[in-house]
Amino acid sequence: MLVDVIPNINELQSDHLQGKTVIVIDVLRATSTIITALAHGCCGIIPVETVCQAKQFQHNRPILLGGERSLKKIQGFDLGNSPLEYTQETVRGRMIVFTTTNGTRALQKTMKGNHVIAGAFLNATACVNYASQLGKDIVIICAGTKDQFALEDGLCAGLLADKLSAQQQRIHLNDLGKAMRAAYKQVEYNLFKALLSGDNGQRMDRIGMREDVEFCSQIDRYSLVPLLQDQVLRATDKLSSKFVPST
Amino acid sequence: MLVDVIPNINELQSDHLQGKTVIVIDVLRATSTIITALAHGCCGIIPVETVCQAKQFQHNRPILLGGERSLKKIQGFDLGNSPLEYTQETVRGRMIVFTTTNGTRALQKTMKGNHVIAGAFLNATACVNYASQLGKDIVIICAGTKDQFALEDGLCAGLLADKLSAQQQRIHLNDLGKAMRAAYKQVEYNLFKALLSGDNGQRMDRIGMREDVEFCSQIDRYSLVPLLQDQVLRATDKLSSKFVPST
Repeated sequence: MLVDVIPNINELQSDHLQGKTVIVIDVLRATSTIITALAHGCCGIIPVETVCQAKQFQHNRPILLGGERSLKKIQGFDLGNSPLEYTQETVRGRMIVFTTTNGTRALQKTMKGNHVIAGAFLNATACVNYASQLGKDIVIICAGTKDQFALEDGLCAGLLADKLSAQQQRIHLNDLGKAMRAAYKQVEYNLFKALLSGDNGQRMDRIGMREDVEFCSQIDRYSLVPLLQDQVLRATDKLSSKFVPST
Repeated sequence: MLVDVIPNINELQSDHLQGKTVIVIDVLRATSTIITALAHGCCGIIPVETVCQAKQFQHNRPILLGGERSLKKIQGFDLGNSPLEYTQETVRGRMIVFTTTNGTRALQKTMKGNHVIAGAFLNATACVNYASQLGKDIVIICAGTKDQFALEDGLCAGLLADKLSAQQQRIHLNDLGKAMRAAYKQVEYNLFKALLSGDNGQRMDRIGMREDVEFCSQIDRYSLVPLLQDQVLRATDKLSSKFVPST
């Protein structure tokens, strides 16, 4: 099984996706928020690239609009991009149209993948179990920020690569995956601090979003996997019986 | 001081270079070989992109032709791309025209940088001391292999980033630099093994070039810095008095 880690969405070539399982990672915060929303009973998330596309759904209740630009909630939207906003009371039974600066664009660009799932620290083991049992080569895409590599996405890719290497006997991890696995192992016992040291972590800390960074640094809080089908992300429980908590 | 690590030569944008000090890294093996050749008394290295360009110098003795394609010496060339070939007996007092698959292309692409130097594990401390005293922002370019990130270049970038962080009080390292520094710290006591685990290391090991990988994994064997001026790489001893061996 080939496992390739891609440093940012700009590095993605379409032949990376043919017949493969794609894991999109945007730890701060798109995929962390998507996972949290689905864990709290949201029935589906429609990732869109632009605010304009999202607003086309504005008068179509019971759809909620969620997302951000420059870390802030978009005017007229119901929700921003903090996983802490996506409580059971707010999202249970609702469909959410979601747009963020980097994460939803990455999801849009990967729609040609055979299976596209959303990963983060929050669902690391479930994500690896799901991708692994599909038996296909895996591409792990770090969404990054403004076309640049983001530390937290790389470290999460490193965790997934480490778990995949432990599970699969025959695996070929690309060199970036090997580097990210080593980087993750170096900081695994200080993950929150490592996330705070990244450019996004520092920026969020400065504007009072430290709690979001802390929430997103939790490993295996949830056991669900958001799967993209027909342009909607829904929780798949196909593997719920096989879920093994991280040790 | 800004320090940016770039994962491969394709990711390089020209505005990355304006007014900056550029460190090009191709551990296996172009920059390791260049450093070794200069340490053994070669008076200068002319990096060229194509075999054809190199062959224009063929009948211009005392120039030697060195380089490789697909890890092998090029037909009609005097030397391949193994640092072990570049002995004092062979290279002392000679000028070398040099072309490799990735490293010399990276050097060619960076010629617009304010100062362009060649780095590797072999001259890590000297390289950091030289770049640091110039006082400019630094771009560390991992040459990579076939437009992909190569583990050994990333780990070397991590070592340089670590040394720069220890030296400079005010430094902003980009997120890839932070990840590479963590990856390097994780493997620093098993560097040869780490280099052998990369795609290039594995490939070289398979075809009997393990000794080259071992040679290139030595930290601070040499204290010289190859500096690119007028399209020629020459050893600079500007900082020789300040050279402090790695501890």
